Amino acid sequence: MADPAPVFTLPLRVYWEDTDAGGVVFYANYLKFFERARTEWLRSLGVGQQALREATGALFVVSETALRYLAPARLDDLLHITVQPLEAGRASLRVQQQAWRNGPHGGAPQLLCEGSIRIGCVDAGTFRPRRFPNAIVHALPA
Amino acid sequence: MADPAPVFTLPLRVYWEDTDAGGVVFYANYLKFFERARTEWLRSLGVGQQALREATGALFVVSETALRYLAPARLDDLLHITVQPLEAGRASLRVQQQAWRNGPHGGAPQLLCEGSIRIGCVDAGTFRPRRFPNAIVHALPA
Amino acid sequence: MADPAPVFTLPLRVYWEDTDAGGVVFYANYLKFFERARTEWLRSLGVGQQALREATGALFVVSETALRYLAPARLDDLLHITVQPLEAGRASLRVQQQAWRNGPHGGAPQLLCEGSIRIGCVDAGTFRPRRFPNAIVHALPA
Amino acid sequence: MADPAPVFTLPLRVYWEDTDAGGVVFYANYLKFFERARTEWLRSLGVGQQALREATGALFVVSETALRYLAPARLDDLLHITVQPLEAGRASLRVQQQAWRNGPHGGAPQLLCEGSIRIGCVDAGTFRPRRFPNAIVHALPA
Repeated sequence: MADPAPVFTLPLRVYWEDTDAGGVVFYANYLKFFERARTEWLRSLGVGQQALREATGALFVVSETALRYLAPARLDDLLHITVQPLEAGRASLRVQQQAWRNGPHGGAPQLLCEGSIRIGCVDAGTFRPRRFPNAIVHALPA
Repeated sequence: MADPAPVFTLPLRVYWEDTDAGGVVFYANYLKFFERARTEWLRSLGVGQQALREATGALFVVSETALRYLAPARLDDLLHITVQPLEAGRASLRVQQQAWRNGPHGGAPQLLCEGSIRIGCVDAGTFRPRRFPNAIVHALPA
Repeated sequence: MADPAPVFTLPLRVYWEDTDAGGVVFYANYLKFFERARTEWLRSLGVGQQALREATGALFVVSETALRYLAPARLDDLLHITVQPLEAGRASLRVQQQAWRNGPHGGAPQLLCEGSIRIGCVDAGTFRPRRFPNAIVHALPA
Repeated sequence: MADPAPVFTLPLRVYWEDTDAGGVVFYANYLKFFERARTEWLRSLGVGQQALREATGALFVVSETALRYLAPARLDDLLHITVQPLEAGRASLRVQQQAWRNGPHGGAPQLLCEGSIRIGCVDAGTFRPRRFPNAIVHALPA
């Protein structure tokens, strides 16, 4: 039986720009946090999206997002954003992502937000769907 | 049998701030567009969120989002964002939302993005869940 | 003596996305508000930036911004954003912009933020500076 | 003669969220980059803004920004954002900030954006101006 794919983690600080007048991180911004973590996860696999586009004309696009918000984050919080691939095919990639905050005084980490993101691949000029370049397919966990 | 709730629509223009280097609207920004439409829908029902908070200490928070992205929008596009309540209870409200663009030369409108958003109510000071104020419950479609 | 250029005004509502944990509009977002007003001002002169780029390859770029922040705006505030051209040449355009909020109970409007923005023109492919297309120069106030 | 204040530097990656349909970093986002660097600079001096607010009720606010944009940054670029205090008083602080990108193949770094930011201090409840807390004044370079 195959091992589950390892989890990639990006640490990330909450700045003023991330918050709203509720005093907490604006919920739409978790999509940005998750995107930053996916970008660094891809980079850790040898895939740079700007270089990929210049070399192959391929553009990654998000086709579905589903998020649940469990607890708020605040200014100056240090978060950890995870990426775990769920399915990786030639035409679609789905990842599970979570945002965690360490507990105060070394307490247990708290899950703030989690969800899944589906990514497809299009031609950068026409936005027509295409298969992921081979370099991506080979880099992704099977 | 009850009629379905009417659909509220907010027209909205795509500006530079909304786009990304793919040349299209950045997908996270549809959550902002949907939020603007929900805010104007609530206002059309007589509910101002800042006034509500000052009067009752109640804060609306998004607890779940699920979006599908069907086609890209571009700079200068005129979109129409819809709000249709699906369920409205004392502790949770769920709405269906869509982003449409008129077809060129009077053609049929195109659906660009759709999804559902679940909203809860918390105390602005403690972020503890609370029931929606009566004024909201009475304003919302049953 | 020439009359001063008329002032263009865009009304604009403050939404959750615009605010930060200080409870007020995040200062960087006034650049977005000012951009929206410039875009609508240009549209009122017959200039659509997406159409212009497709027709001529010209892209407007901001080369300088200078802003002063005088008073905070809050969620649900209705603002009025003004645009007044200061200098319009073949290679550079400078506009004066302000954000106003109506006073409560019909009181005098309050100036919240003001500044000047310098805009240049580049080739969309190379980002090399170029002159504004004639259509723009003729549309702009002398 | 006093030495000039040392320059603080924050490395920072350009993500999709930072770009616009021009294919480059949206100019308003340099204010966010500069803010992140100021926040980390203050943290390096022992000043956490959330902790400061909770302890003293003091909120830092930006009162003036002046930026020049010299060259565009693109997706995946690694930037270095600098902070150098220019004046630090009891009621106002002004810093000089720059955004640099390393040259390709080890070439000379390129300056992309620079400017100055003036910061004041207000009471978080009333937004009335107040002096910086002593802890800040002592932490800042004279």
